[in-house]
Amino acid sequence: MGLWYDEIFHGHTRLGLLSKETLFSGQSPYQKIEVIDTVGFGRVLIIDDVFMTSEYDEFLYHEMLTHPALTTAPSIERVLVIGGGDGGTVREVLRHPDVQQCVMIEIDEMVVNASKQHLPGIGTAWNDPRLEVRFIDAIEYVNKSTDAPYDVILLDGTDPVGPGAVLFDESFYADCRRMLTPDGVMALQSESPLLMMDMFVDIQHKLRRLFSEVHPYLGPVPLYGTGTWSWTWCSNTGEPLRPIPERQAAIVEGSKAYNEDLHQAVFALPNYVKRALKL
Amino acid sequence: MGLWYDEIFHGHTRLGLLSKETLFSGQSPYQKIEVIDTVGFGRVLIIDDVFMTSEYDEFLYHEMLTHPALTTAPSIERVLVIGGGDGGTVREVLRHPDVQQCVMIEIDEMVVNASKQHLPGIGTAWNDPRLEVRFIDAIEYVNKSTDAPYDVILLDGTDPVGPGAVLFDESFYADCRRMLTPDGVMALQSESPLLMMDMFVDIQHKLRRLFSEVHPYLGPVPLYGTGTWSWTWCSNTGEPLRPIPERQAAIVEGSKAYNEDLHQAVFALPNYVKRALKL
Repeated sequence: MGLWYDEIFHGHTRLGLLSKETLFSGQSPYQKIEVIDTVGFGRVLIIDDVFMTSEYDEFLYHEMLTHPALTTAPSIERVLVIGGGDGGTVREVLRHPDVQQCVMIEIDEMVVNASKQHLPGIGTAWNDPRLEVRFIDAIEYVNKSTDAPYDVILLDGTDPVGPGAVLFDESFYADCRRMLTPDGVMALQSESPLLMMDMFVDIQHKLRRLFSEVHPYLGPVPLYGTGTWSWTWCSNTGEPLRPIPERQAAIVEGSKAYNEDLHQAVFALPNYVKRALKL
Repeated sequence: MGLWYDEIFHGHTRLGLLSKETLFSGQSPYQKIEVIDTVGFGRVLIIDDVFMTSEYDEFLYHEMLTHPALTTAPSIERVLVIGGGDGGTVREVLRHPDVQQCVMIEIDEMVVNASKQHLPGIGTAWNDPRLEVRFIDAIEYVNKSTDAPYDVILLDGTDPVGPGAVLFDESFYADCRRMLTPDGVMALQSESPLLMMDMFVDIQHKLRRLFSEVHPYLGPVPLYGTGTWSWTWCSNTGEPLRPIPERQAAIVEGSKAYNEDLHQAVFALPNYVKRALKL
């Protein structure tokens, strides 16, 4: 006997998952965190009543955030992940043998602890010796850190509402650019061009003021509103459609979705997106 | 003050739309037909409690069913559409100036009448002189008709459950092949490889026994379970990635999604689909 757990978008559209059990429920200093076990999507992480990731479809999100950037950046020795407390993004980063160091900045230790305990199938790389997790404020870190710049930065924040909204500010993006090598690549989740077109366009405009190469790309994530999500590839030197074949070859076989053809395909934008971005 | 109208998939996942008003509700000899007006998706056609199409996202479905086939078939003078009572598919077909005749076979006149009255923004080509709508049984038509074969056949049926299930039988596909010119192209909606992977794979296997070229392709449709849908391009001679440039040029500008890059992109399959199909 289950209960429907619904996420409501804009007050008018909802996705409901039949829940079998609540595995974790906690309130951190930052947000409400829950892990539920569902019939259709397996275990699901929920933050402030918003579905964050599920065992069923997390690969579609994490592979797409990670591999377009990590197969195209000139170097990937040092990678910074901001957010991503479920562990899926660093798992994908650390599948690349060329990565020597991965620093993950997550403000909320409770997200990581709940994920370690209840979503062990998503965060399978917590014990990788190349990974360093710091529970600090990413805003301060990218603004003040004297660490060496990173070859790749991945932004795996929540949404541009609530406490995570600062991770979508232009000043934050500018500070991330500061922490990036001159030919480095940044990739981020950038909301849905369907039900959240305004947010999507706003993010693109901010990024264009900071990077000469800004390329949104699209893919499916059933758990997220409308089922279509976007990520954005940014750089000041490179271009996203020239992956390094050896890097791709090293990760395609172990990927559930990502492959050579899909890399090219996701950057093809439908007319309604091109027109909204005046491309 | 609205009411939630939910479609439940497999008993465990639901998409809910906040409804403002029920515009039409009827029971035909074949099925229950409703048109509701929703806050997020505009007007929505519902058949036997399943969301069929919406004003908000219908272009994503209808353009993708139609244009990959109509831009690649050697000839598109005569086109057969089976199902598609909302009028969206024939609208897209008739945007192609090379189409001289479009025959639509829809068993249920009530679907067409309700769509004409309540979804006039979807069916904008009902009065095109090239269109002939016949309210007859498609199964009998493709099995017995002595009409000349068609250059393109588009199958726009409901789902492989309930009264529309016969439109997913291998014998029906074989009869469609009979009604196709030797170098003709058939395209059909082929369910979702996510929540309906079994149906998706089953359809592919049936088609592979009948056509030498069977190419599924994927795209977003927010209204349908998981938000990812598939269509399949079939032929015995051609290949789907070589559209005729003049045909494409004639329809890209007026399309909301379809363009040259997207045509190539949608045929790139993620690993989980390739593996399920042993590609």
